[in-house]
Amino acid sequence: MEVELKDMIEDLESLRQSLPDPSLHSSIDKLRLRVENLTNMAKSVPVRRSKVKDMSAEVVDSNPYSRLMALQRMGIVKNYERIREFSVAIVGVGGVGSVAAEMLTRCGIGRLLLYDYDKVELANMNRLFFRPEQVGMTKTDAAVQTLSDINPDVVLESYTLNITTVQGFDTFMSSLRNKSFCPSKEGTGVDLVLSCVDNYEARMAVNQACNELNQTWMESGVSEDAVSGHIQLLIPWRNCLFCLCTSFVCVFIVYIDSLNHTSFVVASGVDERTLKRGSLCRIFTYYNDNFITKKYTQHAIGGVVAGLLVQNTLKFLLNFGYVSPYLGYNSLKDYFPTMAMKPNPQCSNAACLERQEEYTLAKPARDAAAKAKMEAEALSATECQLHADNEWNISIVDDSEQDRMDGTSAGILVFYFAGIPF
Amino acid sequence: MEVELKDMIEDLESLRQSLPDPSLHSSIDKLRLRVENLTNMAKSVPVRRSKVKDMSAEVVDSNPYSRLMALQRMGIVKNYERIREFSVAIVGVGGVGSVAAEMLTRCGIGRLLLYDYDKVELANMNRLFFRPEQVGMTKTDAAVQTLSDINPDVVLESYTLNITTVQGFDTFMSSLRNKSFCPSKEGTGVDLVLSCVDNYEARMAVNQACNELNQTWMESGVSEDAVSGHIQLLIPWRNCLFCLCTSFVCVFIVYIDSLNHTSFVVASGVDERTLKRGSLCRIFTYYNDNFITKKYTQHAIGGVVAGLLVQNTLKFLLNFGYVSPYLGYNSLKDYFPTMAMKPNPQCSNAACLERQEEYTLAKPARDAAAKAKMEAEALSATECQLHADNEWNISIVDDSEQDRMDGTSAGILVFYFAGIPF
Repeated sequence: MEVELKDMIEDLESLRQSLPDPSLHSSIDKLRLRVENLTNMAKSVPVRRSKVKDMSAEVVDSNPYSRLMALQRMGIVKNYERIREFSVAIVGVGGVGSVAAEMLTRCGIGRLLLYDYDKVELANMNRLFFRPEQVGMTKTDAAVQTLSDINPDVVLESYTLNITTVQGFDTFMSSLRNKSFCPSKEGTGVDLVLSCVDNYEARMAVNQACNELNQTWMESGVSEDAVSGHIQLLIPWRNCLFCLCTSFVCVFIVYIDSLNHTSFVVASGVDERTLKRGSLCRIFTYYNDNFITKKYTQHAIGGVVAGLLVQNTLKFLLNFGYVSPYLGYNSLKDYFPTMAMKPNPQCSNAACLERQEEYTLAKPARDAAAKAKMEAEALSATECQLHADNEWNISIVDDSEQDRMDGTSAGILVFYFAGIPF
Repeated sequence: MEVELKDMIEDLESLRQSLPDPSLHSSIDKLRLRVENLTNMAKSVPVRRSKVKDMSAEVVDSNPYSRLMALQRMGIVKNYERIREFSVAIVGVGGVGSVAAEMLTRCGIGRLLLYDYDKVELANMNRLFFRPEQVGMTKTDAAVQTLSDINPDVVLESYTLNITTVQGFDTFMSSLRNKSFCPSKEGTGVDLVLSCVDNYEARMAVNQACNELNQTWMESGVSEDAVSGHIQLLIPWRNCLFCLCTSFVCVFIVYIDSLNHTSFVVASGVDERTLKRGSLCRIFTYYNDNFITKKYTQHAIGGVVAGLLVQNTLKFLLNFGYVSPYLGYNSLKDYFPTMAMKPNPQCSNAACLERQEEYTLAKPARDAAAKAKMEAEALSATECQLHADNEWNISIVDDSEQDRMDGTSAGILVFYFAGIPF
């Protein structure tokens, strides 16, 4: 804006010189004064920071990444710069999704894919992120506006669509498959999908897409009364939301399962209120009373859930700490339940069963690789052994990876389905 | 800005008509095009929402309070509108304080008092709230700019000062005493002080002020390595940070205790680095490893801690749920330790001992009032009794209030000092 105003001053000056009649100069002066006023006003208009080519750890006030890179210096993260290689898809840019998007943007994530079909309303001002002047914009457009101002280094892709429609679901699937950002990446084009939606249908659409694409994702939610929330890690071979339903109690799932994913999406015209509170949803309510909706999400709860979600996202992507399989938050009691799910071999979802089968088939190869790794480590340990006479034959077993993402640590309740642990 | 631009179009048109030579019209066209471009750009300049006189529960998209008032409809909060009567002081507008301020602003808090002496830097962009275009502004000015745009109904008071200087501390004390916002309020002029600072001296200054004013406050912090944080409720008669130090281990406290509060503040010229990491701080480090500093606060952790802090603030102010005496967050393990402190009758702080004595002296009157309340309730229970033959003499005891703010519930570790429970 300031460049445009500066050019106008020059244009006015050249016009002044072209004017034959000096009596017209006062009009030019008046216009010039207006441009000068506008220049002063424009100073309050946001100026975007320029892009930063390489992440630097230099500790100077002008470095937006200095304090994040400090995580590396302090030994928490091995290679923080890797953050720029990752793509994260956020489905639902509401009370949790928008805040998670802002956190990941400030964190310098490589690429964010944002999905929402809703518009910003004044009634959303109870929650963080959106501002009153964005009322009427689509949430995706408003988010891109704010996020690109905060960090122009992040590649933002905005999808203003409803993933529970046939067309929306197809676009969702193809956007997840698109590998142009990082062609060498294995699997899909994204590293993680974060579900931050407020209804069953959208959750099930994310679940279906991730099962089909073998895509790891995280679920999140805040209860309708805004006093509790949860996050959950879902790995297709290990579990999915459909796994939660055993055939004898889950009529709702029969309705979904009797259709393939496209039809299920089409079938979403069913009155959502009956799904939310009806008796068919008992199993969901039993499993997790936060699973209902989050229409009334309140700022503080949304902030906590988004923070827990993003912190677990960072741990997952940058390979540090323990990634919670499930973490709840009851704000009335400041109680944080954890639990883990085992896959349900009788899951009603075909794609989930396919992923389970692939995992089982690959087990011998995986075990062999793990054994080879252990042997190599044991050999290396023998070479630099402290006690040559290892009479008890003690060897080092690397179980940290299993512990990081599996809920089998002490104190965590493991759910078995149909009595069959997997 | 848009009015100015519209006037410019008119000026250009009248200039065009005054021009004798039509060859100059192209210059006018060029200028007009520039003005039109500027008009489009100006549309992205923030427009503030107007004030809302009364909080309404009406469920319409244009009501910024509809979803907060829903908390009342759902029975979580008895009278949400009371939020407008409360004043909260936030000391430190950094990674936690700024987010807490935004949450309370969106929540419609009556009045916020903000204290900070620092300026916004690009290096702060790892955390939520501040935007790159605010670099160079004081944090208090930048916060007031953003918060008043989000919710013009909140009364904002900005104090750009360092509370650990003599003058800063005096202004801090007098601002807390000022009751002009709600003259009928008992005690000080604020309902709660939130400490969101990143150093010992400021924490001790808040502690000292609150002890002297008998002001309930909450402490918060994030560890230097940005992987853990905590919040804590401090009620002067019950405990203070000085209470944590027993005389035989805490040389640091002797340094503070041998001076009155003003001198202690003056004495803050001591190199802070020695306080942060020196051996004198062992007792603090032992008590709480988050107590060091939060210079490297990262967005997600700051968001979680701010969310927990604000949720506990809302529970405290609006009288619902359980207010945690201490709640920690270890993000590497998703572990949330809780504990409670008992007051230390050998506390090294004179103001703390005065508050403890007042509390002890008022005990007989408090017990008598509690007994009268119980008797009244027992009488009322007898009047509508179900079992006239109460042979075991069972009576109803109201312990909910004690449970709400005291850490004596099951599962919470209670700390005793010098072996003497209070």
